[in-house]
Amino acid sequence: MDKLKKMIVEKGEIREGNILKVDSFLNHQLDAGFLYEMGEEFYRLFKDRGITKILTIEVSGIAVAIMAALIFKVPVVFAKKTQSLNLDKDVYVGKVHSYTKNKEYNIMISKRYLSSDDKLLIIDDFLAEGSAMRGLIGMAGQSGAEVRGIGVVIEKGFQNGGECLRSEGYNIESLAIVDDMKDGKIIFRED
Amino acid sequence: MDKLKKMIVEKGEIREGNILKVDSFLNHQLDAGFLYEMGEEFYRLFKDRGITKILTIEVSGIAVAIMAALIFKVPVVFAKKTQSLNLDKDVYVGKVHSYTKNKEYNIMISKRYLSSDDKLLIIDDFLAEGSAMRGLIGMAGQSGAEVRGIGVVIEKGFQNGGECLRSEGYNIESLAIVDDMKDGKIIFRED
Repeated sequence: MDKLKKMIVEKGEIREGNILKVDSFLNHQLDAGFLYEMGEEFYRLFKDRGITKILTIEVSGIAVAIMAALIFKVPVVFAKKTQSLNLDKDVYVGKVHSYTKNKEYNIMISKRYLSSDDKLLIIDDFLAEGSAMRGLIGMAGQSGAEVRGIGVVIEKGFQNGGECLRSEGYNIESLAIVDDMKDGKIIFRED
Repeated sequence: MDKLKKMIVEKGEIREGNILKVDSFLNHQLDAGFLYEMGEEFYRLFKDRGITKILTIEVSGIAVAIMAALIFKVPVVFAKKTQSLNLDKDVYVGKVHSYTKNKEYNIMISKRYLSSDDKLLIIDDFLAEGSAMRGLIGMAGQSGAEVRGIGVVIEKGFQNGGECLRSEGYNIESLAIVDDMKDGKIIFRED
C-alpha cells in the first residue's frame, strides 16, 4: 500500500531494538480516515474468503480491525491481555511474549465469541516474530474456528514470524513489509 | 439512543458490584455498524463545537472513538495505561482508579499529541464514578487543550461521576443513562 509506505517513511521513527514507532497515525494518535483506507484494502484482499468474524488483540489492533469490520459487515472480537472482573470465567487462553514490553503474558477470549462456525480474518498492526499471532491462532484452534486469512499493517520482514506462518500455509497479506531499517533508512520489500 | 437501550436490555448482563456487562457489542465483541451509528449520534450532538481532536482511553474507548473520528474527520488520541518501551518519555500523566480491576494506575499521553490548540471531544464507553474521565480531563488541562464536550456510551446515573462533572459545567452527552439496575431490571433515565 503505497500511501502506508509513504507515511512510514515520513512519520515513522526507528528506535533501538528494531522498534519502528508509528505513534502519529497507528499506535497512539489514530488517523481514522487512513485506517478506514487500510480496512478497504483488507476487504479487497480477503473479500472472497467468506469471512464471518475479525479477530484481533488489544490494544493497537482494535482500530484497524474495526474499520475492516465496518466494511466486511462482520463483528470484531479482540483478545484481552488482562483478567478483568468483567471477563467471563470460561475462556480460551493463548500465550504471548511481548518484545517491546519484554514479558510473557496470557491473552484471553470468552468462549462465547469464538466458535467452530467462524471463518476468521485475523488483523493486527504489526507482525515481527509472530508471537501474538501464534497466540491468536492457538485460540482459534481451541474453538474450532477456521483461520481464512491474516491481515497485517506493518510486517517486519527481517524477523521471521511472517515467513514461518506462510510456510505453514497461512494466507498473510501485509500492507507494508519492512525488509531492513539499518542506519535510519527503511527498505521495503517490493510488491 | 433507543437502539442502545434496547441492546442493553437484550444483551446486557448485570453482575455483582454494579457491573453491567455489554461484552457482546461494546467491550469484547464489537458491533462495527452499531458503533458507527453511535459515532453518528456523537457527531449530531457535538458537530457545532469546533472539535479538532477526539481523546479517549484504552481499551474500550478506542472503537467508538475511532468511529466518531471517522465522521468528524479529526484524529483520535488514546491515553495509554502502561509504560511501553515505545512510548515517548515526555508525557502528560493522569491518575485513575479502576473499580472493575480494583487498582490505581497512571495513564499517559505523549506531549506531541495534545496541545493548547486542541478543542477536545472526550469519548469513553462508560461513565460511573468518573475516575478515568478525571484523569483525561487532567491531562487535557496540563496541555492547555480545551474540553468542548464529553460523549459517553453508557452512563451509570446512580453513581455520581456525571452529576459532578455537569455541575462543574462540562457538556456531557450520554447515549444511555442507567438510573438503576436493582433486582436484574435496568431502569433508564428518560430523555
